[in-house]
Amino acid sequence: MTDHIQFDQEAMELRLLDQRQLPLQRKTYICSSSEDVVYAIKNMVVRGAPAIGVTAAYGCLLSINEVNTSSDWRKLLADKLNDIRSARPTAVNLAWAVDRMSALALNHHTPDAVQAAWLAEALAIHKQDIEICLRIGTAGAKLIADGDTVLTHCNAGALATAGHGTALGVIRSAVAESKKINVIVDETRPWLQGARLTAWELEEEGIPYRIACDNACAHLMSSGLVQLVITGADRIAANGDTANKIGTLGVAVMARHFGIPFYIAAPLSTIDLNTESGKKIRIEERNEDEVLELAGQRIAPAGARAWNFAFDVTPAELISGIITEKGILLPPYQPALTATLAGHLA
Amino acid sequence: MTDHIQFDQEAMELRLLDQRQLPLQRKTYICSSSEDVVYAIKNMVVRGAPAIGVTAAYGCLLSINEVNTSSDWRKLLADKLNDIRSARPTAVNLAWAVDRMSALALNHHTPDAVQAAWLAEALAIHKQDIEICLRIGTAGAKLIADGDTVLTHCNAGALATAGHGTALGVIRSAVAESKKINVIVDETRPWLQGARLTAWELEEEGIPYRIACDNACAHLMSSGLVQLVITGADRIAANGDTANKIGTLGVAVMARHFGIPFYIAAPLSTIDLNTESGKKIRIEERNEDEVLELAGQRIAPAGARAWNFAFDVTPAELISGIITEKGILLPPYQPALTATLAGHLA
Repeated sequence: MTDHIQFDQEAMELRLLDQRQLPLQRKTYICSSSEDVVYAIKNMVVRGAPAIGVTAAYGCLLSINEVNTSSDWRKLLADKLNDIRSARPTAVNLAWAVDRMSALALNHHTPDAVQAAWLAEALAIHKQDIEICLRIGTAGAKLIADGDTVLTHCNAGALATAGHGTALGVIRSAVAESKKINVIVDETRPWLQGARLTAWELEEEGIPYRIACDNACAHLMSSGLVQLVITGADRIAANGDTANKIGTLGVAVMARHFGIPFYIAAPLSTIDLNTESGKKIRIEERNEDEVLELAGQRIAPAGARAWNFAFDVTPAELISGIITEKGILLPPYQPALTATLAGHLA
Repeated sequence: MTDHIQFDQEAMELRLLDQRQLPLQRKTYICSSSEDVVYAIKNMVVRGAPAIGVTAAYGCLLSINEVNTSSDWRKLLADKLNDIRSARPTAVNLAWAVDRMSALALNHHTPDAVQAAWLAEALAIHKQDIEICLRIGTAGAKLIADGDTVLTHCNAGALATAGHGTALGVIRSAVAESKKINVIVDETRPWLQGARLTAWELEEEGIPYRIACDNACAHLMSSGLVQLVITGADRIAANGDTANKIGTLGVAVMARHFGIPFYIAAPLSTIDLNTESGKKIRIEERNEDEVLELAGQRIAPAGARAWNFAFDVTPAELISGIITEKGILLPPYQPALTATLAGHLA
């Protein structure tokens, strides 16, 4: 599935499959301005670190039309890009995409020239992301044996990327190699990305799965029902500490306790060598109502408060390996990440 | 709060606060037959191991009127009691209460005599449960320091007992000792006993709390926001292995990982010396729709399946202590449990 992020060059519109409505409804959310893109990212019309990166690139492109009549267009453009860049704080792919577009703009001297360059670049980032996911899938598939049950948390699928997915991409590639795989899908409260999005993708592809409440993980692991864990990532620090959807740390702790391998699957664009360790990653806190309401209905008493951290950080020592488009990186991560990124950029 | 289980002797009716409707509505569910009681237990109008025990005792009492005109009343009564006893499989307090009533019936030779004895016995079990919870509270309160934040899973409060509660009883008693306590309430999917019931009790009493999705536990612990964990229990095996609400095992594993003490609070009636270890405890699997629907609304794709184990088993080695009405039992649990129960029964 790659049609959930589509750019219409004629209409200059970004068409997003509205992930808030899945799996019950298939609706398109149209972004015709950079503000629309900021809204879509902030409010999770689109989510998943790589998908946010691709969306942000198109957001930059849309912003050009909003400033090109002004003599002060570079300054105005910088403000627009900053709004996109700060739409959400944790996923580094967002900053990565905006910075990549921003750097490219410096080489071009008119709004029209920037627009032409950015259109090509956004399309390239988009296409590249799918190719990267396919390579991640191929690299990781060897970790999954025929007959394994893989547990995954949140949605690191096609919807979280431009297509194929990272963690789910590995599962897809293993299935494509004719391995018989079962998936346990953590429902992933409060936003239910697992029950709604990952389940939807697996259902569409006919890959057998069962949804489980997040708190069932330990029992399923202790019962021998899980052979492997693979999740995505929102930011990987230089030492390998990994920010991902809230609950990932718990899954990693339980996997270690029960002796189950725990892998991260992510593109190199998720690695942030400027972030020394997980301690330096800013964890987004979202509106408490996301926890206190469910499907628009209040579940908690009036007056109740909630903790709603959107992410947590899994320390490198709990991660068995990081599956990237350049292969599986193993501990110690500091040198592995540095060398791989250096080779990649060279 | 002790008015959520009320027996009206004149009407011969058991009046239960319908826990399925909380916190949004306060409705009474009236049981005028043993079938009503079986329904109430099976469908979680009432839940929580000690509360189920008290309810079951009244269920036995109600069953007498259904058989007393038959010459074969003892046989019919045994069938009724068996229906109550098997309404749910995991909480041992249910079997404990029915067996206690059943044994008492042998001493009485007419339905009327059994009824009189059972009325007194059910009222005694009911009253006793509140007293036991108060003693558990006093015994456990010393574990909580002024200023601590205690994490609890599910509802082991007044609603889960005849009053005061077990895990929440400990917190209540600490608050009564003028300690300033904060509570983190795991929402406890799929039934949301935490977000709905524990939060409701704390809100009513003005004890500060925050609800968190079950998967936030590791992040909250790793951030230093939790000093102590206390949960209830549905069955404690002879070796100390403890069955409790699904997710308890995960909390215990995380508490161990982050060096946080993990306590169980339960009456001695929850200890089952006939169950050698956790491996022998039957874990109830409930309807998958409890996971796939939320507040009556489908959240997962059509065709999705789910795991819905209602309980898990925390091995004794992860439990720092078991808080009972006879004090705090420490490992090794096998001798501690045996000696305490022997002293209790002597």
